[in-house]
Amino acid sequence: MKRTTYAGSVDESYLNQEVVLKGWVQKRRDLGNLIFIDLRDREGIVQLVFSQEFSADALKVADTLRSEYVIEISGKVVSRGEGAINPDMKTGKIEVEVHEINVLNQAKTPPFYIQDNINVSDDLRLKYRYLDLRRPEMQRGLLIRNRITQAVHRYLDHNQFVDIETPYLTKSTPEGARDYLVPSRVYPGHFYALPQSPQLFKQLLMGAGFDRYYQIARCFRDEDLRGDRQPEFTQIDLEMSFMTAEEIQEMTEGLLKAVMKEAVDYELQTPIPRITWNEAMARFGSDKPDIRFGMELHDMSAAVANAGFKVFDSVLENGGQVKAIAVPNGAGAYSRKQIDAKQEYIKRFGAKGLAWVKVTSDGLQGPIAKFFMENAAQITEAAEAKEGDLILFVADKAKVVADALGYLRVAVAKEMNMIDETQFAFIWVVDWPLFEYSEDFQRYIAAHHPFTMPNEEDLDLLKTDPHKCHAQSYDIVLNGYELGGGSIRIHRRDIQEDMFKALDFTKERAEAQFGWFMDALDYGFPPHGGLALGLDRFAMLLAGKNNIREVIAYPKNSKASEPLTNAPSFVSDKQLAELFLRPELPEQGNDQES
Amino acid sequence: MKRTTYAGSVDESYLNQEVVLKGWVQKRRDLGNLIFIDLRDREGIVQLVFSQEFSADALKVADTLRSEYVIEISGKVVSRGEGAINPDMKTGKIEVEVHEINVLNQAKTPPFYIQDNINVSDDLRLKYRYLDLRRPEMQRGLLIRNRITQAVHRYLDHNQFVDIETPYLTKSTPEGARDYLVPSRVYPGHFYALPQSPQLFKQLLMGAGFDRYYQIARCFRDEDLRGDRQPEFTQIDLEMSFMTAEEIQEMTEGLLKAVMKEAVDYELQTPIPRITWNEAMARFGSDKPDIRFGMELHDMSAAVANAGFKVFDSVLENGGQVKAIAVPNGAGAYSRKQIDAKQEYIKRFGAKGLAWVKVTSDGLQGPIAKFFMENAAQITEAAEAKEGDLILFVADKAKVVADALGYLRVAVAKEMNMIDETQFAFIWVVDWPLFEYSEDFQRYIAAHHPFTMPNEEDLDLLKTDPHKCHAQSYDIVLNGYELGGGSIRIHRRDIQEDMFKALDFTKERAEAQFGWFMDALDYGFPPHGGLALGLDRFAMLLAGKNNIREVIAYPKNSKASEPLTNAPSFVSDKQLAELFLRPELPEQGNDQES
Repeated sequence: MKRTTYAGSVDESYLNQEVVLKGWVQKRRDLGNLIFIDLRDREGIVQLVFSQEFSADALKVADTLRSEYVIEISGKVVSRGEGAINPDMKTGKIEVEVHEINVLNQAKTPPFYIQDNINVSDDLRLKYRYLDLRRPEMQRGLLIRNRITQAVHRYLDHNQFVDIETPYLTKSTPEGARDYLVPSRVYPGHFYALPQSPQLFKQLLMGAGFDRYYQIARCFRDEDLRGDRQPEFTQIDLEMSFMTAEEIQEMTEGLLKAVMKEAVDYELQTPIPRITWNEAMARFGSDKPDIRFGMELHDMSAAVANAGFKVFDSVLENGGQVKAIAVPNGAGAYSRKQIDAKQEYIKRFGAKGLAWVKVTSDGLQGPIAKFFMENAAQITEAAEAKEGDLILFVADKAKVVADALGYLRVAVAKEMNMIDETQFAFIWVVDWPLFEYSEDFQRYIAAHHPFTMPNEEDLDLLKTDPHKCHAQSYDIVLNGYELGGGSIRIHRRDIQEDMFKALDFTKERAEAQFGWFMDALDYGFPPHGGLALGLDRFAMLLAGKNNIREVIAYPKNSKASEPLTNAPSFVSDKQLAELFLRPELPEQGNDQES
Repeated sequence: MKRTTYAGSVDESYLNQEVVLKGWVQKRRDLGNLIFIDLRDREGIVQLVFSQEFSADALKVADTLRSEYVIEISGKVVSRGEGAINPDMKTGKIEVEVHEINVLNQAKTPPFYIQDNINVSDDLRLKYRYLDLRRPEMQRGLLIRNRITQAVHRYLDHNQFVDIETPYLTKSTPEGARDYLVPSRVYPGHFYALPQSPQLFKQLLMGAGFDRYYQIARCFRDEDLRGDRQPEFTQIDLEMSFMTAEEIQEMTEGLLKAVMKEAVDYELQTPIPRITWNEAMARFGSDKPDIRFGMELHDMSAAVANAGFKVFDSVLENGGQVKAIAVPNGAGAYSRKQIDAKQEYIKRFGAKGLAWVKVTSDGLQGPIAKFFMENAAQITEAAEAKEGDLILFVADKAKVVADALGYLRVAVAKEMNMIDETQFAFIWVVDWPLFEYSEDFQRYIAAHHPFTMPNEEDLDLLKTDPHKCHAQSYDIVLNGYELGGGSIRIHRRDIQEDMFKALDFTKERAEAQFGWFMDALDYGFPPHGGLALGLDRFAMLLAGKNNIREVIAYPKNSKASEPLTNAPSFVSDKQLAELFLRPELPEQGNDQES
């Protein structure tokens, strides 16, 4: 039997036709002389009817079917009875009277139901990933991901980008995150590294004159995992020659528009708004602002200064800031206790405390209100608050204020249902600092990467006071998530050398690590720039999920292992000997097999 | 200045227009008050003219230009003078009078010319790959490769295939070729493996109900390198549920037709011819026959038996074969000395010698002709030879005869210019043996892989006499190269268990290595099958190259290293300690850095 269409695609247009369908038994309802089977495939579910009247043999087989059996049937599409119509299903107005059935495979009882919203541990879902992926919400996630990549290929091909593969076995560059290493069998003691991104290879393609490159590229980072991190992840990776930052952004907007239309039928309005990094930090306390709601940060320094509240005054005297957000209708919504709980929340960002006042018809209320009786109107105005609002203050160094209020703004917006979840709000954050201070490393590091071009007017500053430079870089943010980022790259050797100097590389170290790349810049490199979008995160956001695992077919778990195949695993001594390696195991360690 | 078009795209349709072009200086011809520059970009070359008349400033700059400088210009497109027209170039009828020029970057003198057909060592080309890739033939190869992948995405999307990524960090499976390993930092002594193919993951996607999967997937094999092998290579990987081998072949033919049209504007005729593996071996002595020419193998046993030539007789008595090819017009083309050289050539295939006769107007001639005076006509007929031909005989075991004459057939066809190089000759080779005897391992191994379904009628044989089974497998061959292959897969646990048994797996070993996969077969696996095409080889053949390195942007050299970045390389002790590894170096070994 050759399938004529998908089970989930049979609708009234097939009425009175004979169809052949293949798929899985979702459910059986046995009425004795009448058996109903829900047949499931990738496209959905259709109802099959077995009866003596249509085929005694088929009825007999139907009686033996259990969940997840694989069957093929042929039968006639008929209208359902009045009362049996299901308007929520594409196939809800019809059913199929089965004339013939073959069981193609049997199935054991699955360890969980093949349906949405199951309550099962992540590891069990990963161990039986082939069953987990049968569930409609998982299918939908991967199908949305596929629509994204199809739109990407089509749009970029149309715009004369060339899909070029870069190597996965490449050189370890100890800058940035930790590399995954691959021992060489040919060169004892030598290792390849899996790439953290195709950055330098794509820049070299610009040097090679390909003009417009793209790749949907796997990237690898051996870092400790967090909610939406995976050891391997996928980038939509672009690079263009002879284009300005604005032209690259415009090209990207076209791409995003095409993807949004294709993947979720959403009409993205362009141009996408742009704000500078400075403005994003000032207004949203975040370099990835969620602009689906307001409740922006306001500088309260002028309004609160010298009112006698020592905490604020001392912060201001020491060069700090006092900023606030006004929670619409927050005065009634938040009890003192609930506000106190927020104190704890913001401490993780280094803030010492949260001050607050409620704006009531009787003026400001709350523990610190007494200091501000005289300038209540000024405060309400500065915070853009109105009667019934709750004003939340943080006073500290600029970075702490931004982090604390930035995250608080989002947390409160969620609690207050201020976010329109049907909206996809994109925004460009541009003109980033070239460097940022890393508390981990106790030194300045590249805010994006060491190949980012400073702003034209900062080129001299790069030699004299590099950490004040801003960069020709841009992030694209979606609903408060960093969807991607990019920059104009350095295409001149002298600037690249200054950059490494600013990062405290000795000349020798720069030469040893990146000499091969700087040599390339000597041979006629064009001005160029690009961008990378996180495909996993993009798919996650479009599928309405909150973990990228939900849109990756075979992800690792939170301990970087794969319960399905049980990777990583021990390998044979012979394999290790061939690689000139001996394991040096700790006395006690994690054991994946135990 | 914003580029208005590519340099290589400017033709008469731009006449009298002002254009902005950006690219590389290919060549400068200085006539004093007139300077001509060939400007090169991805699309080709256009001629720029600088003169006092158009712009004194621009002329001054032009005077400083050297090869590979990066420039942008604006200027007016004008007709070339009668005598200056170059009909071989797209831009050959026009030139651009330059009004303004900016030098965007300078360039040192490249170590080789940026042009086709350079005579430079492979390693130098790889070290300066960004320059090598500027050469038009290299650009063309990667652009053809890109057209292949674009056609693949479009065709498969149109046919409801879903692009799904499978993991690159996965489990080592010691069957087949050697794995590249990736040490785990979380689980001491444990390793991931880079996949040799997504085989089991794609089968599980069929189990998960995705119905039609594809991926352009990187694969990894740590094997000794040969001419067209690389440590990492790329597959166009397909899998389909509920389809027969013939239906899968038909789908693949549609794909090939689309690719051939898109990549090289070639009208592929379908259906593609199919022959069985048995027939391919019999007629062409090869499981990847080049059918662009005839000169097939003929069984000469009946014609030569009992004529008194002991070599033939003894082979036939011992169950061997005598086969021959007839080289058209070979009698005149090959001297006795040249034929003797072929003796050496076929010895590498285990053949003991080459017998021959020339068909002349005076009958058969040559050292063994005397034995066949009586049945000369019979021999000429059996070999399908005519006057002027050279008949070449090999007598040996079937496998040796096939190999020796199969390769000889191709070598002779090349020498005799019998091959139409403009033709793309596809052929399916179907119905392979399920197993083949491996001289390396001294045992039977799976001819394709252990997940290949035997022919329906051989299922009982799998239990009793497995090595006689044929398989539901198929290779697609192009111009004598194996372009790809696939099969219907085993979807039932009992057959999979029989298969492992036939491969001499103990029950325990099968369970330990593939238990997780066989468990999956228990939960309602659909019948399914698929295919993988070698993208590198496909691009190589369509670009008319003879090494896949020519169509890979950053390949490894023949020693699996990359001269550009110098990968693989030593890594720090800290990196190794984090992975619980200690190198165990041999006293003297290869040193990549030396």
